Amino acid sequence: MNVVDLLWLVLASALVFLMQAGFLCLETGMTRSKNSINVAIKNLADFCLSTFVFWGVGFGLMFGLSQGGWFGTDLFALDLSASSPSLAVFFLFQVMFCGAAVTILSGVVAERMKFGAYLFVSFIVAGVLYPIAGHWTWAGLAGFGGSGWLADLGFVDFAGSTVVHSVGGWAGLALVLVVGPRIGRFDHGANKSKIVPSSMPLATLGAILLFIGWLGFNGGSTLALNENVPGILVNTVIGGCIGAISAGGLSYAVRHSLDVDQFINGTLGGLVAVTANCFAVSTGAAALIGLVGGMIVFFFSQILEGLKIDDAVGAIPVHLGAGIWGTMATGLYGDLETLDTGLGRLEQIAVQALGVLAYGVWTFGLALIVFYLGNLVFRFRVDAEGEILGLNITEHGIRHESEVIPAGPPLLESEA
Amino acid sequence: MNVVDLLWLVLASALVFLMQAGFLCLETGMTRSKNSINVAIKNLADFCLSTFVFWGVGFGLMFGLSQGGWFGTDLFALDLSASSPSLAVFFLFQVMFCGAAVTILSGVVAERMKFGAYLFVSFIVAGVLYPIAGHWTWAGLAGFGGSGWLADLGFVDFAGSTVVHSVGGWAGLALVLVVGPRIGRFDHGANKSKIVPSSMPLATLGAILLFIGWLGFNGGSTLALNENVPGILVNTVIGGCIGAISAGGLSYAVRHSLDVDQFINGTLGGLVAVTANCFAVSTGAAALIGLVGGMIVFFFSQILEGLKIDDAVGAIPVHLGAGIWGTMATGLYGDLETLDTGLGRLEQIAVQALGVLAYGVWTFGLALIVFYLGNLVFRFRVDAEGEILGLNITEHGIRHESEVIPAGPPLLESEA
Amino acid sequence: MNVVDLLWLVLASALVFLMQAGFLCLETGMTRSKNSINVAIKNLADFCLSTFVFWGVGFGLMFGLSQGGWFGTDLFALDLSASSPSLAVFFLFQVMFCGAAVTILSGVVAERMKFGAYLFVSFIVAGVLYPIAGHWTWAGLAGFGGSGWLADLGFVDFAGSTVVHSVGGWAGLALVLVVGPRIGRFDHGANKSKIVPSSMPLATLGAILLFIGWLGFNGGSTLALNENVPGILVNTVIGGCIGAISAGGLSYAVRHSLDVDQFINGTLGGLVAVTANCFAVSTGAAALIGLVGGMIVFFFSQILEGLKIDDAVGAIPVHLGAGIWGTMATGLYGDLETLDTGLGRLEQIAVQALGVLAYGVWTFGLALIVFYLGNLVFRFRVDAEGEILGLNITEHGIRHESEVIPAGPPLLESEA
Repeated sequence: MNVVDLLWLVLASALVFLMQAGFLCLETGMTRSKNSINVAIKNLADFCLSTFVFWGVGFGLMFGLSQGGWFGTDLFALDLSASSPSLAVFFLFQVMFCGAAVTILSGVVAERMKFGAYLFVSFIVAGVLYPIAGHWTWAGLAGFGGSGWLADLGFVDFAGSTVVHSVGGWAGLALVLVVGPRIGRFDHGANKSKIVPSSMPLATLGAILLFIGWLGFNGGSTLALNENVPGILVNTVIGGCIGAISAGGLSYAVRHSLDVDQFINGTLGGLVAVTANCFAVSTGAAALIGLVGGMIVFFFSQILEGLKIDDAVGAIPVHLGAGIWGTMATGLYGDLETLDTGLGRLEQIAVQALGVLAYGVWTFGLALIVFYLGNLVFRFRVDAEGEILGLNITEHGIRHESEVIPAGPPLLESEA
Repeated sequence: MNVVDLLWLVLASALVFLMQAGFLCLETGMTRSKNSINVAIKNLADFCLSTFVFWGVGFGLMFGLSQGGWFGTDLFALDLSASSPSLAVFFLFQVMFCGAAVTILSGVVAERMKFGAYLFVSFIVAGVLYPIAGHWTWAGLAGFGGSGWLADLGFVDFAGSTVVHSVGGWAGLALVLVVGPRIGRFDHGANKSKIVPSSMPLATLGAILLFIGWLGFNGGSTLALNENVPGILVNTVIGGCIGAISAGGLSYAVRHSLDVDQFINGTLGGLVAVTANCFAVSTGAAALIGLVGGMIVFFFSQILEGLKIDDAVGAIPVHLGAGIWGTMATGLYGDLETLDTGLGRLEQIAVQALGVLAYGVWTFGLALIVFYLGNLVFRFRVDAEGEILGLNITEHGIRHESEVIPAGPPLLESEA
Repeated sequence: MNVVDLLWLVLASALVFLMQAGFLCLETGMTRSKNSINVAIKNLADFCLSTFVFWGVGFGLMFGLSQGGWFGTDLFALDLSASSPSLAVFFLFQVMFCGAAVTILSGVVAERMKFGAYLFVSFIVAGVLYPIAGHWTWAGLAGFGGSGWLADLGFVDFAGSTVVHSVGGWAGLALVLVVGPRIGRFDHGANKSKIVPSSMPLATLGAILLFIGWLGFNGGSTLALNENVPGILVNTVIGGCIGAISAGGLSYAVRHSLDVDQFINGTLGGLVAVTANCFAVSTGAAALIGLVGGMIVFFFSQILEGLKIDDAVGAIPVHLGAGIWGTMATGLYGDLETLDTGLGRLEQIAVQALGVLAYGVWTFGLALIVFYLGNLVFRFRVDAEGEILGLNITEHGIRHESEVIPAGPPLLESEA
């Protein structure tokens, strides 16, 4: 690996790390104050825990010597200070991806899970679910030990519409089915009892930080600073921008005012949608893919609502919905020469569909089983009293200043 | 373009993107809670819209084949995934600049404009005003299709004190004249009814993010990672720091306490002031230019106040005031050999003044006409009731949690 | 200096700059609303002031021609636009380090110091304390004028566990002894009157921003993008993550709930601990050093509490406690060949201990004297009434919107 590629991966890793800050802002802003300390610290805690677990176990399962394309069996707990620089920087970049996949779940089930139970979930995702899923498509990336079975079939997922985002989304869907909706969320039926977020400006800041981080997420996935990077980044930016306009525009058409949630999640949906294919489509196609990505976010969130599935921040529509779409769009619009799988258009589309299905079965299936059993053992949810009181106090024994210290008598401006 | 320059422009683009996050924090912090969701989402929405418009129209007008140095006529809606990497990365960098120019306006007229009307304004700035103005000076940057008429005369604006900042400031001034001051802003005369901002800490965070982003803004404007970049960055940092000390110090001298607004806007004024010239002045000169930039921010904001022009975040003093100063300072202090225009000192100063004038006439004039007519058609302002209620609820049907759910009875610390 | 190293240092500087944003969020979040504007603006103001002072005086004292290894005597107020690019970028990187060292103090003594007095303190730290201390170890870094006396003895502090963090921590300790605890902090004895922070989510965001910035802090300290950088970064990430788990886990063991403060400060403690040695230890050793770093943060904060030393954000345990540990760990675990001092293990440990001692005597001793005298002259503390009222209003004549404008009558959800 030459030194420029090394530098690019270092900085792309820093950019993907910024997505943790983005997720923190997004999720904290979209949830209620009484839970916001819990929501925020989960974003730091899952990063710390999953990094440690991915170092110890996950990285080896994902990139180690392949057992028939299903999982790896070495590279556990590496001493990366003594490894080649290219392995160390590859680890650095991949550990940030793992963190992103894990933290997707935190938003879905915000405001009702025990902190310890969430750490258990993070452990499972970072240690088992994500790395094995990742192996199927990305095992060959690092060129160490064989390749994944899906990649062998010709499945393409450039930066992880499926491998990162759908996996996070599927696991989140399984988890939300296990833990159930927040108290009061569907008291008056679907589409009625929307919970008021604590700070949409903070959530908007989160979306921008995520957008910036995505430049590293997609751009770094070349694993080199080659001549494709600028086009990839332009496609990424266009996809995100059009996704926002699309979901925001739909909300405007329906409600006659811009739904801020939809605009934000449309941005993210557009970004997720182009993640799999931004290296192999034209800028115009990226615009189209982002447009549909935003639409999917809009409609998918209505469907979840109708099914009374309570996704606290709308992460499932974004990461699962737009993730599936982006994966299929790779087959539909990807330049076949660039995809370089030797498949024809219809074959490519079929393989992409097979991949979507395989990831759904594995991630959703295993997650549902593990989380169901885990819930039997640990009981994931805080009790009703604790949920009503808020997770800040229930889980961390801490309150916001505004809850504890009454504001003094308001001063007139002239006094100041 | 070599691969190191490519990498630098990619990362400089990410840094300039961070300025959107900075503007969001700055403007949201400096305005009232009842409008803060609207203020925040405008910063994401104008980026998304202006990126799309700049891709479709603006980039071609700015950098396409020149019609006599006035505007370009090709490069519209490019497929940048199929273009040369240097064109794609140049687009990426330029689209971030466009976003910065546009979002300047959002702060000026915060807290009273309809969301849709603001999108119309963004469309005009990103699609017409900014790119044509930019063509005059920067058309030759990319080396495609001729050069701008002002550049041909020897006008120098390295990273956009005028092309980005003054253009944003002039358009903002035109817009604020059309929409008028916020209700209650001058009820007790000028300098009396200051509106209390929702979060100055958030605004301060915004200033730091803007400062960091400026490293990409000025440093990337070399379009190469050459030996001038470190000196440019040091000048940028020194200029910003001295601008803060200057405006903050003046406020202290007048009020006997540090005016946080002035300190923040002084930082930005110092940064704007060195933007045009940081490649061609000594570090000491950058300090002087930043010092005067901070002073201009301080005095210019008093003047606007006196004229009852209600700039909600002080963007006009920063971007227009310090932008003009920085452009003139390029003529006054710029090393003539480095400017490389072949002009003598006095000629250079005259050409800089001509540029300032030309940009003022074009941007302010056209903006005033278009915004005046637009306002007749769309009515830019929300009605008085909506403004008093706040734009969160009026424009987006959303409220802060603290407005909707009364805080529970305060607990004693001992209960926690 | 080759162009890739130049680019890396430019971007590492930007990352370290991001730590200022991190400190702002951390400190503002951990303190009370009534002081938060003051806390936030101090983070911008000390950066601006210390950058100017470091340019004028500090850089020369730190890296100029050495007087017997004790301090430098040239390179004051350099024109860095005319210097070599490698000197300019080295200045840029170092000025960010100076800013980090200075701003450590702001958190320790938050919520009770006059703004002007804090600027005086910043001036002393940036102009005298930090650069002279830095000279002893890092004078030879730039290869200009000799080397420091501690470096000559074989003292190793790669990225500044001591030179930056302990120096900041020692000076902070001296300052807090001079200014005393906040009113009400120990009213009911130690461990009883914990002050409720305004926003732990903001503090958590700050920790993530600091963590990201640390990639530049440690990674850039090679002053080159060489093959050691990726391993250094992995060690940094692992150290920070384990520090969080360690301090957080201890708090859980003691309190049966995760202490958010400890988790955050454990992250930072882990990062500080590996800062001195991340270039010379295995990933496993970095994990161990981070683990102990987190433990030190936990126990050190209990000790300060017991001694009724009121460190508002827990900066002394993090920067001084973990800083000393990291410096000693360099001797204990550092690969001797990589340290390249020619010393044996025990000698290396002894020299590290000597360094710790020397820095303690110099920084704490001089800081105590200067701050004691300064306090006699200026009176550092606001008066009791002003402290109770809050520093926003006392020092800046500004209040939060929520204090000035009473919230309107709460609306029912159905109205929104």
